[in-house]
Amino acid sequence: MHDHIVKSFDEEQRRLLNETLRMGEMAIAQLEAALDVLQRRDDKAAERIIANDEAIDALEHEVSHDVMKLALRGPLARDLREILAAIRIASDIERVGDYAANVAKRSIALNLAPPLPQIAGLHALGMLAAQQMRDVMAAYRDSDVELAKRVRARDAEVDAAYTGLFRELLTYMMEDPRSITGCTHVMFMAKNIERIGDHATNIAENVWFLVKGDEALPPREKRDATSSTVAP
Amino acid sequence: MHDHIVKSFDEEQRRLLNETLRMGEMAIAQLEAALDVLQRRDDKAAERIIANDEAIDALEHEVSHDVMKLALRGPLARDLREILAAIRIASDIERVGDYAANVAKRSIALNLAPPLPQIAGLHALGMLAAQQMRDVMAAYRDSDVELAKRVRARDAEVDAAYTGLFRELLTYMMEDPRSITGCTHVMFMAKNIERIGDHATNIAENVWFLVKGDEALPPREKRDATSSTVAP
Repeated sequence: MHDHIVKSFDEEQRRLLNETLRMGEMAIAQLEAALDVLQRRDDKAAERIIANDEAIDALEHEVSHDVMKLALRGPLARDLREILAAIRIASDIERVGDYAANVAKRSIALNLAPPLPQIAGLHALGMLAAQQMRDVMAAYRDSDVELAKRVRARDAEVDAAYTGLFRELLTYMMEDPRSITGCTHVMFMAKNIERIGDHATNIAENVWFLVKGDEALPPREKRDATSSTVAP
Repeated sequence: MHDHIVKSFDEEQRRLLNETLRMGEMAIAQLEAALDVLQRRDDKAAERIIANDEAIDALEHEVSHDVMKLALRGPLARDLREILAAIRIASDIERVGDYAANVAKRSIALNLAPPLPQIAGLHALGMLAAQQMRDVMAAYRDSDVELAKRVRARDAEVDAAYTGLFRELLTYMMEDPRSITGCTHVMFMAKNIERIGDHATNIAENVWFLVKGDEALPPREKRDATSSTVAP
């Protein structure tokens, strides 16, 4: 009997490895297809690639599900959820730290030129992201699913503020080409902050997972439209 | 005796939660400090923030270490490493998929204007990243630590190619302001691809972790210098 359990645990693990490998193949195929449509300027094919991303997301969900199934074989389901949530949340926080350091790094490059007027908007965007992080860490501390859900819903506000700032920067760069290098830094800083918002959302989703396990989260809005921005 | 073990497991878990919470506080403080020095244009303070990022990275390492310590309480140390590696690698692949989809999305926006000459360089950068992903997934499949180490070392090439392309784009934007929107898309596409390289590196580090456990990796080079770029 013990042998049987061990073997089937192995099988589950092999399944996990294979799923992850398949995810990798899909992501590489997506990248190569994206590079190809970029050269061929083929909108239809690009749309297909965008739609295909869902399949990778679905596979990641399967991997998480299988990890949970493996974890639930032990008597410590909630313990293991806590371990998994901690490691994923730690990894998100590490990225937030990287983005914050990159904002600081770019601010040094910006100081070599006169101040840009968009810094105020960037600062407001950053404060919004900082509030998101503060709230989601409180949600994690208190296992507060409702707060986590609010953080996740509010990410659309961060995205909308980022999109507005991005458009403003584009206009400014066109009006004054000397501002291009500086504005490029501000754009990447804004993008870093928008990404911090995404990591806050990831953490919110891990708080949900921690408390609710595999139960599905409600769908949410996305408002970052800058990837489709055309000349203003 | 059993009670004692359970209690101390709980204590370890509380420690894990507290470390992760502390990481969160540090990351938020870093973000707020970065926003502050941005407004005050204070280079010295910015340097401190950049240096502080190491403390967050160190804490993430502690979290991983504690997770391992918890995991190693069971008889299935390698199994649990496989589970943890799978979930982290899956999460990296999921991001690679997102970046590939974003490249495709931006290519649609680019198709509304005449082709940009930098697309060839972007394509070459993308192929380099695709090769990195292919190699690292093979390293994962075969638990090939040497291949994983090579992928990790080669990330400096991706960074160097990205930096070169970034500078070329800046110059081009300054010469022809009508190219700004398009070049901005190419910049973000290049950044997406550079990030794919980073995720390949993360996966390489997880392959190392899977095989070697907590043994430290050799240090590596970083060549993405665009965060410090000033007007060409």
